[in-house]
Amino acid sequence: MIGGAVSMEIQFLGTGAGVPAKQRNVTSIALKLFNKRGSIWLFDCGEATQHQILHTSIKPRRIEKIFITHLHGDHLYGLPGFLGSRSFQGGTEPLIVYGPKGTEEFVSAALSISATHLKYPLSVVEIEDGMVIDEDEYQIIIGQLDHGIPSFGYRVIEKDRPGELQVEKLRAIGVPPGPLYQQLKTKEKVLWQGEELSGEEFVGPDKKGLVVTILGDTRMCKSALSLANNADLLIHEATFDAASEVMASQYFHSTTAQAATVAKNANVGELWLTHISSRYTLEDAERLEREAQALFPNSHMAHDLLELSVHHKKIE
Amino acid sequence: MIGGAVSMEIQFLGTGAGVPAKQRNVTSIALKLFNKRGSIWLFDCGEATQHQILHTSIKPRRIEKIFITHLHGDHLYGLPGFLGSRSFQGGTEPLIVYGPKGTEEFVSAALSISATHLKYPLSVVEIEDGMVIDEDEYQIIIGQLDHGIPSFGYRVIEKDRPGELQVEKLRAIGVPPGPLYQQLKTKEKVLWQGEELSGEEFVGPDKKGLVVTILGDTRMCKSALSLANNADLLIHEATFDAASEVMASQYFHSTTAQAATVAKNANVGELWLTHISSRYTLEDAERLEREAQALFPNSHMAHDLLELSVHHKKIE
Ligand SMILES: [Zn+2]
Ligand SMILES: [Zn+2]
Repeated sequence: MIGGAVSMEIQFLGTGAGVPAKQRNVTSIALKLFNKRGSIWLFDCGEATQHQILHTSIKPRRIEKIFITHLHGDHLYGLPGFLGSRSFQGGTEPLIVYGPKGTEEFVSAALSISATHLKYPLSVVEIEDGMVIDEDEYQIIIGQLDHGIPSFGYRVIEKDRPGELQVEKLRAIGVPPGPLYQQLKTKEKVLWQGEELSGEEFVGPDKKGLVVTILGDTRMCKSALSLANNADLLIHEATFDAASEVMASQYFHSTTAQAATVAKNANVGELWLTHISSRYTLEDAERLEREAQALFPNSHMAHDLLELSVHHKKIE
Repeated sequence: MIGGAVSMEIQFLGTGAGVPAKQRNVTSIALKLFNKRGSIWLFDCGEATQHQILHTSIKPRRIEKIFITHLHGDHLYGLPGFLGSRSFQGGTEPLIVYGPKGTEEFVSAALSISATHLKYPLSVVEIEDGMVIDEDEYQIIIGQLDHGIPSFGYRVIEKDRPGELQVEKLRAIGVPPGPLYQQLKTKEKVLWQGEELSGEEFVGPDKKGLVVTILGDTRMCKSALSLANNADLLIHEATFDAASEVMASQYFHSTTAQAATVAKNANVGELWLTHISSRYTLEDAERLEREAQALFPNSHMAHDLLELSVHHKKIE
């Protein structure tokens, strides 16, 4: 799909809360970026994330970054095993782990106590509220949420890409392919047969990048709203059903209705609910989805191993 | 089965080596003791051991002791998640973890960084070569093996239990049930109607306890032999097939043939092979089993979730 219409896919690796259950493993989300390298980023790495990956087409060495939202075990405990197996399986590509203060200590302790020597360069970067990670093609904005321990959300912004050179238009006026095309592509002004050609005129409109917001565990909060603002896709936890608002607040979590309220107020394209308590059966899941849809129609319930393409939100 | 003929069962929770695979998870073995409390002990706790338990009848709160053989990740990384979930699910019974030096640091780091507060008392006891754990009904002898890092084996000895009072014999001579029976049962001499009765005569022979030896990763070594000496059942790693002796030695592991040699020389009742490299398919597994059987006929290949009863070895 490289270069195709879809530039991002998401695969849920674990959609449960707190403890693993047969139907839902603890949290991990894969974001597949259809860039040149076919990079994959993980968000959270609960226990047995590497086991879930065995049931997908994901190659561990393709995973270049892991973003940990917070240090609760159900989001973290799969990290040492994943790191070790990625090396054991011959991965030599560098890996960066982003996570709250404490991530570095956990990773170091686990690897050193188990005498695990990675064959690839690993960096751990500890995050803070407001931090921005700037990459060639992406920007990631980090914001702190409202949970029992520091918990963060990630707004992943695919940078706009320059439009394509409209080759037909150039051919029509007789400009032959060659170095000139490269100059025009970067919107330069060039001289051709005494005539000045402006690149602007021969380059299509910028391709707007996608915006995906993935939040850690949280109560409904302002920070969630601003991270999600106008995003094409929002992944929000919904540990509890709409009726359990008091309990959700008590445990620093959100309900389906609260997640949908954030999606609606942030004006996102679509909402995916995850981090579902193991108290809910698969049948309950349909009800939970409908609870969100009642407030924000483009709401969906995540399931383990479900894959989806990210699309631009419809402009109203 | 409490009080029945079988006093111990084993269930393999993970029988793979190094990294999890679809067919075999990384190492963990459950030893079910049919004592009054229905205690269960775990040997090793590789990642996703708690996930494997979801597919068994084992209740996490019944697990009273966890013995870690060594600190390689494939034997250890499931421990924090298991500890946390046991608490989350309401377990309040105490738990003791035995493991090599470093176990305490790993457990403390993982629990404190993830802000995991257990609702049950947890103790971590660090083990050494030659240590003996003495319990009411069991004795565990610990010996160090030959691996890249300190790796240990556990010889679990069920203590002999006193024979049963032969009530029929007492009734035949007219002794009525009552406090006298209790005294006779403990082999005391008692006076009954002026006659001296010797408990010895009315108590059946001691019931011999079982001996099960469970070894961590190791090369073939003398310590394995002495831990396994005359055991009813031996669980020995067989990471490689018989032809891969050089590689096995290089990686501090054993082959099928070496495991069988230990079983034969230690004169055990039966041998179970586990910790099978993911390079071997299910078909290969049959060949690996035959390789061991060629040297020690009562050899068996373990598989994930396989359950078996422990029997007294036949006396030749
Ligand atoms: Zn969580
Ligand atoms: Zn191992």
